[in-house]
Amino acid sequence: DTPFVIAGRTFTSRLLVGTGKYKDFEETARAIEASGAEIVTVAVRRVNVSDPSKPMLVDYVDPKRYTYLPNTAGCYTADEAVRTLRLAREAGGWSLVKLEVLGDQKSLYPNMAETFVAAEALIRDGFEVMVYCSDDPIAARRLEDMGCVAIMPLGSLIGSGLGIVNPHTIRLIKENVRVPVLVDAGVGTASDAAVAMELGCDGVLMNTAIAQARYPVRMAGAMRLAVEAGRQAYLAGRMPRRAVADPSSPLIGLVG
Amino acid sequence: DTPFVIAGRTFTSRLLVGTGKYKDFEETARAIEASGAEIVTVAVRRVNVSDPSKPMLVDYVDPKRYTYLPNTAGCYTADEAVRTLRLAREAGGWSLVKLEVLGDQKSLYPNMAETFVAAEALIRDGFEVMVYCSDDPIAARRLEDMGCVAIMPLGSLIGSGLGIVNPHTIRLIKENVRVPVLVDAGVGTASDAAVAMELGCDGVLMNTAIAQARYPVRMAGAMRLAVEAGRQAYLAGRMPRRAVADPSSPLIGLVG
Amino acid sequence: DTPFVIAGRTFTSRLLVGTGKYKDFEETARAIEASGAEIVTVAVRRVNVSDPSKPMLVDYVDPKRYTYLPNTAGCYTADEAVRTLRLAREAGGWSLVKLEVLGDQKSLYPNMAETFVAAEALIRDGFEVMVYCSDDPIAARRLEDMGCVAIMPLGSLIGSGLGIVNPHTIRLIKENVRVPVLVDAGVGTASDAAVAMELGCDGVLMNTAIAQARYPVRMAGAMRLAVEAGRQAYLAGRMPRRAVADPSSPLIGLVG
Amino acid sequence: DTPFVIAGRTFTSRLLVGTGKYKDFEETARAIEASGAEIVTVAVRRVNVSDPSKPMLVDYVDPKRYTYLPNTAGCYTADEAVRTLRLAREAGGWSLVKLEVLGDQKSLYPNMAETFVAAEALIRDGFEVMVYCSDDPIAARRLEDMGCVAIMPLGSLIGSGLGIVNPHTIRLIKENVRVPVLVDAGVGTASDAAVAMELGCDGVLMNTAIAQARYPVRMAGAMRLAVEAGRQAYLAGRMPRRAVADPSSPLIGLVG
Repeated sequence: DTPFVIAGRTFTSRLLVGTGKYKDFEETARAIEASGAEIVTVAVRRVNVSDPSKPMLVDYVDPKRYTYLPNTAGCYTADEAVRTLRLAREAGGWSLVKLEVLGDQKSLYPNMAETFVAAEALIRDGFEVMVYCSDDPIAARRLEDMGCVAIMPLGSLIGSGLGIVNPHTIRLIKENVRVPVLVDAGVGTASDAAVAMELGCDGVLMNTAIAQARYPVRMAGAMRLAVEAGRQAYLAGRMPRRAVADPSSPLIGLVG
Repeated sequence: DTPFVIAGRTFTSRLLVGTGKYKDFEETARAIEASGAEIVTVAVRRVNVSDPSKPMLVDYVDPKRYTYLPNTAGCYTADEAVRTLRLAREAGGWSLVKLEVLGDQKSLYPNMAETFVAAEALIRDGFEVMVYCSDDPIAARRLEDMGCVAIMPLGSLIGSGLGIVNPHTIRLIKENVRVPVLVDAGVGTASDAAVAMELGCDGVLMNTAIAQARYPVRMAGAMRLAVEAGRQAYLAGRMPRRAVADPSSPLIGLVG
Repeated sequence: DTPFVIAGRTFTSRLLVGTGKYKDFEETARAIEASGAEIVTVAVRRVNVSDPSKPMLVDYVDPKRYTYLPNTAGCYTADEAVRTLRLAREAGGWSLVKLEVLGDQKSLYPNMAETFVAAEALIRDGFEVMVYCSDDPIAARRLEDMGCVAIMPLGSLIGSGLGIVNPHTIRLIKENVRVPVLVDAGVGTASDAAVAMELGCDGVLMNTAIAQARYPVRMAGAMRLAVEAGRQAYLAGRMPRRAVADPSSPLIGLVG
Repeated sequence: DTPFVIAGRTFTSRLLVGTGKYKDFEETARAIEASGAEIVTVAVRRVNVSDPSKPMLVDYVDPKRYTYLPNTAGCYTADEAVRTLRLAREAGGWSLVKLEVLGDQKSLYPNMAETFVAAEALIRDGFEVMVYCSDDPIAARRLEDMGCVAIMPLGSLIGSGLGIVNPHTIRLIKENVRVPVLVDAGVGTASDAAVAMELGCDGVLMNTAIAQARYPVRMAGAMRLAVEAGRQAYLAGRMPRRAVADPSSPLIGLVG
């Protein structure tokens, strides 16, 4: 396999995980351990970084061992997102960040117009921006052209667990950009993660699928295996599909 | 995890693999090794068991290390299938067998009527019968009632690589029988194997998906991981799916 | 279009409808009228044919205008089914019948073994048998060989509204037999009926999708249009599908 | 049914059709007639409007009978699109237009950033803009807020015939805006058109599915029926779907 490189840093694991929605930090730590992830996302607006009287993530998930990836979960404008990440940089020195600007609370679908504005400001500011986005292959290329270091389209709505609803657009994104493409929402179970990798994506980011499983630590282990399985299957080159012929409707390659 | 027991024998790996369609026995052996399988199916009618001047499978895949599972690939009547397995027992002493009686050469869909006749004769004869069958939950229960030791429904047509087309019937079969259920045709890539396990199946059997991948040994490794990933995800209890509400069409549990 | 002929009788409408699950016979009659159906199924075991003090279907749905198709809903053995249809013939003179032998109350999946026994007895008895069956193309051919006049595979479980879950097997059935093929369970909404016809089926039978819609009469009209739309689309020969190329996985015609 | 109103004009047919890709204008005219469409799109850059020595669309498809909807097919920048529609207005006086700004020739996916720029300029210019767009519910609302008179998301790539790949986002768009929503690319056959309407969309626009069918006029008639079937089914309120229960994964309404 080729190395998995984001912004010049090489990683072994292609599975990135969130740190929210767990019962407690103890469980968070055990699930992350089981997942084999090397990069963990942290919601800057939600995590306790200043009150030493309350539990702190850093006491459970060692920032020396894991690459913390601050994200802008809960931000609905470019302005909020940019301010949030500037705070994160001041607090922890992080410059590799995950940008997400959400469109509304109901769907958590990205607001792409605000995402472009924020990405531009952050890149100008010297951040290395991994960006949550819609599954729009033209927008993906534009984000790469702006200087984003990874494109992170949704597989389906955040927290939906519906998997990769539109494999066609994910494949187009992968064809359209050279920086890593990571599916960043929608994974519900192990096979979904494998599908993402089989489409040729470079990695997968998930949170709810692990944290909201009945047994999160066990699911974290399943996801570790599934991402590796999907990657190996992609590299192995799957057998052709053979369907009962529909003479009136051959399947024709559109692009490629 | 609970042990994986077929006909009183306990296995660790839930992935069973075929031995046909490879470039040569060398590749067969390496792929099986990479798959981690403990049970390998052998097409009695196709394998060379008597001519020492030609390569023999047993020289590459050690029958002391692997459980050979003779199958009736290529049989289109109960009579052919029963005779084939009697020959296998005389030649190799095998009594744990995989019965498949095919309906036609075009689809390789099972002929269930002939399958019932053959299963009955074989069980009366003292064989332990694992049985390839359609995804019919009523037929599955009848096969169990007759004494079959494992029910092996197709996920889709043999050699099609279309995956598990009808998860509803596979789930019904799993609810209807107590002996192990193994998906036995249709797997095309790693995620398909994971899906089979996530539905609660006890194992998966495949041949083409590995042998006809561009790099069979690598795919065998992917399948090993995928079966384990799917099993762990099943045991972990996945998160609920959440869809955009369609007020006119709630999804209701039908059976269970 | 070629004529739609069942057992020597020519029909115009390719939509067959059930008469159960409505609020009252008034609504039944209006929905059937809106559906344009010429054949209506009647559950012999459930319909009142003898007590003149209670409402009778025949007073609302004129047997001179509609072809009554007695069915064996609620029968779980060949014996029950055969007796039920003999009673129907004695009572109403019907010889064109719909046979269904169910496997269990939970799934309402057909019991194919009992179905074969019943079909044979009924055909020997002079009945013209339309037969509800699983989506097994080998069984379908055997039912035709026995003399059944129409093959009626399920699209998905009775009452599920999940549509045509496995189009591959329905297409195989259509290729395997010459008598009419009608999808007989699973339709949930108009597009499902269109899909059945686009696969090349000769007709569709439904009950719940109309009777359990919020506005049954309106849904009956929708189904009338959908069956005609699907039939015309089939005859028109649809455009090819064009997918983003997956070089490692071309779609290949398997059979046909 | 409520009336179908776009920019203050009421239409009866919810099916809009293109005029390109036919064998000749004769066939175009017959297919449009069979479709029942009242609005036909015209690619301003491709149609002959000035050379009287060559066949002209207006001689076959009467602009007094049909509402001509000039579109910007073939435009890849906001500037091109705006100039194209200004030309159309000068030539034919049309102010109700369909804007599409494409991202690249390979995918024909919309360029949303350029689409926003063009929509703003056109609306300022007094055009009534129906807009082809990605299936992004946040972008859809923004286009409505800018003053677009209809939102026209793709069901799948133009010319792909893959149908409505992501029903979730289409449904979200319908929830997010008040102006009419029309699915504007991807329909391949009649059932796809029915699905679009069953999701609650107000209309469907298609070209290739009709023009590239083996028998375009027949397919046009199928589409007319399918759109009406899907609309009626939506209004009728379909039965609930009932799946075999997966206790570990109930389906939960996310939004709505």
